[in-house]
Amino acid sequence: MKRQYVKDLKPGVPVDDIFFVTRRDIKERRDGAPFLTFDLMDRTGNVAGIMWDRVEDAISCVEPGGFFRVQGKLGNYQGRPQLTVTVIYPADPKDIDRDDFLRATKHDREEMMSELHGYIETVKDRHLKKLLTSFFDDREFVDQFIMAPAAVQVHHAYLGGLLEHTVMMARLADKMPAVYSEVNRDLLMTGIILHDVGKTGEYVYESVLDHTYDGRLVGHIVIGYGMVRDRIKRIPGFPDELSRMVLHIVLSHHGQMEFGSPKTPKFVEALIVHFLDNLDARVAMFREALEKNPDTKWTDYQQFLETNIYVRDKPD
Amino acid sequence: MKRQYVKDLKPGVPVDDIFFVTRRDIKERRDGAPFLTFDLMDRTGNVAGIMWDRVEDAISCVEPGGFFRVQGKLGNYQGRPQLTVTVIYPADPKDIDRDDFLRATKHDREEMMSELHGYIETVKDRHLKKLLTSFFDDREFVDQFIMAPAAVQVHHAYLGGLLEHTVMMARLADKMPAVYSEVNRDLLMTGIILHDVGKTGEYVYESVLDHTYDGRLVGHIVIGYGMVRDRIKRIPGFPDELSRMVLHIVLSHHGQMEFGSPKTPKFVEALIVHFLDNLDARVAMFREALEKNPDTKWTDYQQFLETNIYVRDKPD
Amino acid sequence: MKRQYVKDLKPGVPVDDIFFVTRRDIKERRDGAPFLTFDLMDRTGNVAGIMWDRVEDAISCVEPGGFFRVQGKLGNYQGRPQLTVTVIYPADPKDIDRDDFLRATKHDREEMMSELHGYIETVKDRHLKKLLTSFFDDREFVDQFIMAPAAVQVHHAYLGGLLEHTVMMARLADKMPAVYSEVNRDLLMTGIILHDVGKTGEYVYESVLDHTYDGRLVGHIVIGYGMVRDRIKRIPGFPDELSRMVLHIVLSHHGQMEFGSPKTPKFVEALIVHFLDNLDARVAMFREALEKNPDTKWTDYQQFLETNIYVRDKPD
Amino acid sequence: MKRQYVKDLKPGVPVDDIFFVTRRDIKERRDGAPFLTFDLMDRTGNVAGIMWDRVEDAISCVEPGGFFRVQGKLGNYQGRPQLTVTVIYPADPKDIDRDDFLRATKHDREEMMSELHGYIETVKDRHLKKLLTSFFDDREFVDQFIMAPAAVQVHHAYLGGLLEHTVMMARLADKMPAVYSEVNRDLLMTGIILHDVGKTGEYVYESVLDHTYDGRLVGHIVIGYGMVRDRIKRIPGFPDELSRMVLHIVLSHHGQMEFGSPKTPKFVEALIVHFLDNLDARVAMFREALEKNPDTKWTDYQQFLETNIYVRDKPD
Amino acid sequence: MKRQYVKDLKPGVPVDDIFFVTRRDIKERRDGAPFLTFDLMDRTGNVAGIMWDRVEDAISCVEPGGFFRVQGKLGNYQGRPQLTVTVIYPADPKDIDRDDFLRATKHDREEMMSELHGYIETVKDRHLKKLLTSFFDDREFVDQFIMAPAAVQVHHAYLGGLLEHTVMMARLADKMPAVYSEVNRDLLMTGIILHDVGKTGEYVYESVLDHTYDGRLVGHIVIGYGMVRDRIKRIPGFPDELSRMVLHIVLSHHGQMEFGSPKTPKFVEALIVHFLDNLDARVAMFREALEKNPDTKWTDYQQFLETNIYVRDKPD
Amino acid sequence: MKRQYVKDLKPGVPVDDIFFVTRRDIKERRDGAPFLTFDLMDRTGNVAGIMWDRVEDAISCVEPGGFFRVQGKLGNYQGRPQLTVTVIYPADPKDIDRDDFLRATKHDREEMMSELHGYIETVKDRHLKKLLTSFFDDREFVDQFIMAPAAVQVHHAYLGGLLEHTVMMARLADKMPAVYSEVNRDLLMTGIILHDVGKTGEYVYESVLDHTYDGRLVGHIVIGYGMVRDRIKRIPGFPDELSRMVLHIVLSHHGQMEFGSPKTPKFVEALIVHFLDNLDARVAMFREALEKNPDTKWTDYQQFLETNIYVRDKPD
Repeated sequence: MKRQYVKDLKPGVPVDDIFFVTRRDIKERRDGAPFLTFDLMDRTGNVAGIMWDRVEDAISCVEPGGFFRVQGKLGNYQGRPQLTVTVIYPADPKDIDRDDFLRATKHDREEMMSELHGYIETVKDRHLKKLLTSFFDDREFVDQFIMAPAAVQVHHAYLGGLLEHTVMMARLADKMPAVYSEVNRDLLMTGIILHDVGKTGEYVYESVLDHTYDGRLVGHIVIGYGMVRDRIKRIPGFPDELSRMVLHIVLSHHGQMEFGSPKTPKFVEALIVHFLDNLDARVAMFREALEKNPDTKWTDYQQFLETNIYVRDKPD
Repeated sequence: MKRQYVKDLKPGVPVDDIFFVTRRDIKERRDGAPFLTFDLMDRTGNVAGIMWDRVEDAISCVEPGGFFRVQGKLGNYQGRPQLTVTVIYPADPKDIDRDDFLRATKHDREEMMSELHGYIETVKDRHLKKLLTSFFDDREFVDQFIMAPAAVQVHHAYLGGLLEHTVMMARLADKMPAVYSEVNRDLLMTGIILHDVGKTGEYVYESVLDHTYDGRLVGHIVIGYGMVRDRIKRIPGFPDELSRMVLHIVLSHHGQMEFGSPKTPKFVEALIVHFLDNLDARVAMFREALEKNPDTKWTDYQQFLETNIYVRDKPD
Repeated sequence: MKRQYVKDLKPGVPVDDIFFVTRRDIKERRDGAPFLTFDLMDRTGNVAGIMWDRVEDAISCVEPGGFFRVQGKLGNYQGRPQLTVTVIYPADPKDIDRDDFLRATKHDREEMMSELHGYIETVKDRHLKKLLTSFFDDREFVDQFIMAPAAVQVHHAYLGGLLEHTVMMARLADKMPAVYSEVNRDLLMTGIILHDVGKTGEYVYESVLDHTYDGRLVGHIVIGYGMVRDRIKRIPGFPDELSRMVLHIVLSHHGQMEFGSPKTPKFVEALIVHFLDNLDARVAMFREALEKNPDTKWTDYQQFLETNIYVRDKPD
Repeated sequence: MKRQYVKDLKPGVPVDDIFFVTRRDIKERRDGAPFLTFDLMDRTGNVAGIMWDRVEDAISCVEPGGFFRVQGKLGNYQGRPQLTVTVIYPADPKDIDRDDFLRATKHDREEMMSELHGYIETVKDRHLKKLLTSFFDDREFVDQFIMAPAAVQVHHAYLGGLLEHTVMMARLADKMPAVYSEVNRDLLMTGIILHDVGKTGEYVYESVLDHTYDGRLVGHIVIGYGMVRDRIKRIPGFPDELSRMVLHIVLSHHGQMEFGSPKTPKFVEALIVHFLDNLDARVAMFREALEKNPDTKWTDYQQFLETNIYVRDKPD
Repeated sequence: MKRQYVKDLKPGVPVDDIFFVTRRDIKERRDGAPFLTFDLMDRTGNVAGIMWDRVEDAISCVEPGGFFRVQGKLGNYQGRPQLTVTVIYPADPKDIDRDDFLRATKHDREEMMSELHGYIETVKDRHLKKLLTSFFDDREFVDQFIMAPAAVQVHHAYLGGLLEHTVMMARLADKMPAVYSEVNRDLLMTGIILHDVGKTGEYVYESVLDHTYDGRLVGHIVIGYGMVRDRIKRIPGFPDELSRMVLHIVLSHHGQMEFGSPKTPKFVEALIVHFLDNLDARVAMFREALEKNPDTKWTDYQQFLETNIYVRDKPD
Repeated sequence: MKRQYVKDLKPGVPVDDIFFVTRRDIKERRDGAPFLTFDLMDRTGNVAGIMWDRVEDAISCVEPGGFFRVQGKLGNYQGRPQLTVTVIYPADPKDIDRDDFLRATKHDREEMMSELHGYIETVKDRHLKKLLTSFFDDREFVDQFIMAPAAVQVHHAYLGGLLEHTVMMARLADKMPAVYSEVNRDLLMTGIILHDVGKTGEYVYESVLDHTYDGRLVGHIVIGYGMVRDRIKRIPGFPDELSRMVLHIVLSHHGQMEFGSPKTPKFVEALIVHFLDNLDARVAMFREALEKNPDTKWTDYQQFLETNIYVRDKPD
């Protein structure tokens, strides 16, 4: 684990820690000698780097997309911080902790998984229960489900975001059958838990968050459909109607075709999954906008929400 | 209270009860003699009526838009039921029960009001509490709030619909602050309870549901804004920011400008009120569509929802 | 095979043939005696039916949704033809030919299948060739593919419509690689042939055209995705990239998300499949509009196309 | 009043005048010494500032959002003008003239107010006359109405813009009743004059133009509705219908819900107010675009108008 | 000129006048004898007709799309008026007056033309004046311009509608240059007068209003462009810039591409022509809606305007 | 013809060739001496230029929008290449070759013209043939048609782009009549060849690509309509229907009104021209995106296409 994060770097204090390099350019000084500029990052932010002297080794070993041990000191260029690098070389793999470089959920993943198992326990229909356990008894799937983000940007764009998003939705859904007697609790809860499983195949998150090729060519909605369909097929006697309804929830959870759902919700449980998905995503966007704008009455403009957000005075 | 409702009329059985007349036409037989046709309704539906003989009195006394005592017998014309009327005259006002002619909520209004008072009790902020009680201690307002529909068609289009819609939303909102710690419970609950108070001025529901002139020229969102603003002004020391936020929730609860909200939600409680309003309305539309299509796998096409709704087999 | 089709029925000529009953109502005469009205159809159109006498047997045996032997004579009611039925009873199953009741392509299905096999032959990539033959060597699939319509209404809404639509697109695609050198012929042709295979699971067409439950809850795009994905999985060594691209073509062939494609085309072969799909569908709509409006300069308004269509004078 | 405006600054001439500071950053030189950069503005434009020497006092006293006395000389940095500041300290409040820092209408405000009073004189209906005079005999309101801008950007975004916009619309409306006999002149003129009064509460314009909190959470349409409603309530015997119609004009003047009007125009005077509002705003946008692009045949792209504007040659 | 118009027909009074036949069907009585039904119209409305006896001659001579002398008596069928015809034969052409069968402007055409000539007189630019007189000195063009409707439905859909619409716009435009000094009066007035000349080629109005083939395939905007361009070419020395601007006004007067203008307005005169065109059309729609709904507080729903229109009480 | 193109410039190698100057700024050094910065371009790209010494002559003779002989050497500023200029003066006109400065089609123009003549040969209808030859026997038109681009950006934005686009579409169209028997080959081919002739008047392309005034005020669709209409008028006996149909194809080829077509396609040949126009433009956009992104799996985001494009691995 790192000791010096980008957002804590102070001018003048010597720097010596591991950073991820996202850009590296070789330039030429007036006198013709080469120098290097970098972008360095960890999970707390980015900082520009510059290296003036003894750059030959650096030129040969530093490539963007890798982890490096960096020594230097923080200065300022055109009003923005800049790290003047004196030494840089590839980091020892055993010193690299992915959690240092990717933002992660603030919630405890084990607790959230255990809460999720609690919701699974409440599902009484034996086929749906079997379907859920076929996912959550599969160690490989669970490892991905626990780590996956829920997006590349916009909301829950951090490790564990998918799990957090799913658990929040399950909490909201938990009371729904008590309010609406027509809601089938087992179907709703199964839909909640499985609606976004395709996101385990939509993103890569080794060092930066990005889409997989399948993520862009197929998308998490249809990837998830395929994953659920495969497991249903392996459960003997899984009723056709139930299968069709669970798959429909996965396909329709974006609510409208222009948002990528090939079908709109056609029964009440699908409708509710769509609403809770949308609500939890937007609440998270509001929250993240506020976190990024701590000392104002209005956040900056939120592209996706098409508005600025109002920050209320601290209540008494 | 009526004994013979439209939907229970049987061919051949003599009819003698009160109906509301929505149309009345005078026509001419081949032999030149006049006859009458009507549309008759009560809260369970419509039926066509026809009157062949001794129509002089009927011609002079029967006007559309009134309640009439009707005697006759059910037949059939071009495959649809038709009531052959022998006697028709104005109903005695004391025999007319509005609940016979307008659909009403299936829930007990007193119980719902009492549940609503429970939610008001939980509001701790004294200005918000005062604002709520200024509404719900006002007998005249409460009488309207208890009877008003939530719409003329589409959803909750029946007496008590507004109250039912508000209580359902309060139930859903009740657990939200436990899931999202950033939510201010008092503000959310106040927003839920007041968001639609303008509907008491948007509809008339004496005999049929319709919009008031103000309903169509101003609309329930701005009517409600005016009502809440008036009462806030009468509460000394009501904080400006709180006032602005409560009013914003009322104005923004349709979520998007093209749905009649002059502002979109700009903080999380306004966002949640909008979502729960929308969710409860849609769940009600799904429910009402299923009730009207009891014996099919698919309901007829739902204009507003832009889909047919799937009816699942009865679960085991 | 029938001898008397609805569109050829003449007033006065005795009728005796098999028809499909889509509606049946029991009504009451002035004198209280029951009579029956029907809607009768075959692939050439609909006609109303009425039965006045000896209706007891008919009442007990005639249900909508079945095939019946009908005897009677054509008359006229309110300016529209009406068949006065004297005898009606269930048709002998062995006398029923589905082609009499559902419209069918005017092209020879065997010839079209053989043309399609010709296009499959031209595919050189061995994995794509295996994928195509896994479909077209499967007798059960081919039986459905040959019979399926391409739509319930709008275009190619008749037996064999899917095959006809696919062959037309293949003809158009055949010359594309010669015009655009960047186009991979094998991938394009595979995409054309497989893009709509999901329609074999989207429609039922035993007696009338309709959607299956899966058709409405999942849709042919995702059904087709599942079918192609299953077969690809069974082909050892099928390259990941090729798999992803073929599946993407299936998913993106509607071109835009609001038309039900969860992804828009992301490479040139997917783009072309989308364009040819759209073009062939629209050319068919123009053609069908002209066929229904033989003697005018303008067809009636075409809802889907949002226009009337101009009919040019016969060229010299 | 200032003597040196931003747009008139010349390289080499000593600068000594008051400017408004919108940004101030502390940076570090290569040798570690701090220096300052600013953004300085007055009503004619912005200029970057830089201060290299004796910055200690400036660091402690210069905050963005204030008026400062600035001495220095204009140079050039990366092709853009830059003011090298030698002295800067808070301006004496009595030397600050808001009109130096905010753009203002080119028309004489007193003349425009007097023209507006002329239009009010022509209103014959005594209730409408009373309503108008209740606004325009109220000194506090008039002071705001005379100063308020009509927008923060896009059109009439300067002091007195609201008054100018209102008078222009009144001129256009003045002849309407002569063209369309069905137009009620009193109602139209009242609608014109009051439609935008809410803008007095939508903007702040002490030093820069911005929205108030109410402006963003409620908006000028509903703020204006509240203002007009309050004054109507205080006029005894104001007819219900007239009230409803005036309020509807205020609410509907943006013409479409997606532009923030909760209701669309429902009678002809409301329609005309909407059209003239829109027309005058767009004519002003065209005019302002031309003023900003004096020497071209095409203005730069106008975001809001979604076009470039053609500049005709000077007519003979 | 007719003496008996459809809307004045009374039950029982003998009818004997000329009507236009838009439909004619031959039907069969229970006893096999043929009878005829028609739709008859004049400029005041439609009425159904029925002919029971001696129909042989009528069958051979009555075709839809012609004018006929009709004798009979008004009765009633299913609550709607029906003319029982006893005699019908082709009308003598010299007895047919087109004004009896097509609605016409209520304004005096000669007066309107003379007002229009007044506006032409005010144009000072000699090229624009020449362009206008080249149209309005051309008798053939003027004859069409005086008679043409401004639409087939929606607004000004009557003979002389184009002239009326143009004159109303010219009245509105007349004062614009006094309000906006940047407006070139000559260009604006020329644009107003010519913007819709293409409508003389878009409609036929011999007996019913309809589109020409060119009207549907090319449209009045581009037809008008062609007409103005042809005449400009014949004026020696017509300046290029002026030509381009006049033609642009014609092309852009629908304001947005989705309404059929291939270009949006790019200078202020084009903008104003678009606004006045739109305003006058909508005022006319409001007016026509009110005329069709004389005794209500709300008109029926206006498809094009997407609203019902409020009818105010008669003012004191 | 040039010997040193922008994209081939190497650091350190002396530069001496002709470039087009698009920007020139005079700046001031710290010591008050002026220096110059430029943007220099040829058809292969842009490069920034800077000139420090002996700039007096350069200041007086260098204007943006002209061709200049430039001598200097390539360096680097802030990580981007920069040409340090020592000598610059106006280029001798006879040394300037437009093809050096504007991108051009990679195909041989003569071959393409000859292929196009081949398609014209196949047109059998003598009026259409005459129309086509009236264009393509006109040397002045052909000179423009051969050089014109098909767009300013987006697709085929290079000299000869219009010709290339037209020929590609003709190739695609060539086989259509064999697939769809209802297609009139002569009309389709004429429509293809003439649909974009207006582009010869929409663009200037002397030194940079830009729109003409007519291009922006009228647009190529209506310019082309005028050109075709003029030539049709000069052909005696050209049938009205044929004229109307050819002109409709030109007007409707953008397919939808919001894309600038005043009419949507109303017969099958117009539909096909629209589709092929759209398809060829998009295939070109895909191709150009790939060319600009040679070494990635995904191109950068394509604004117009609203997607990134997937780059497949090189097939075996």
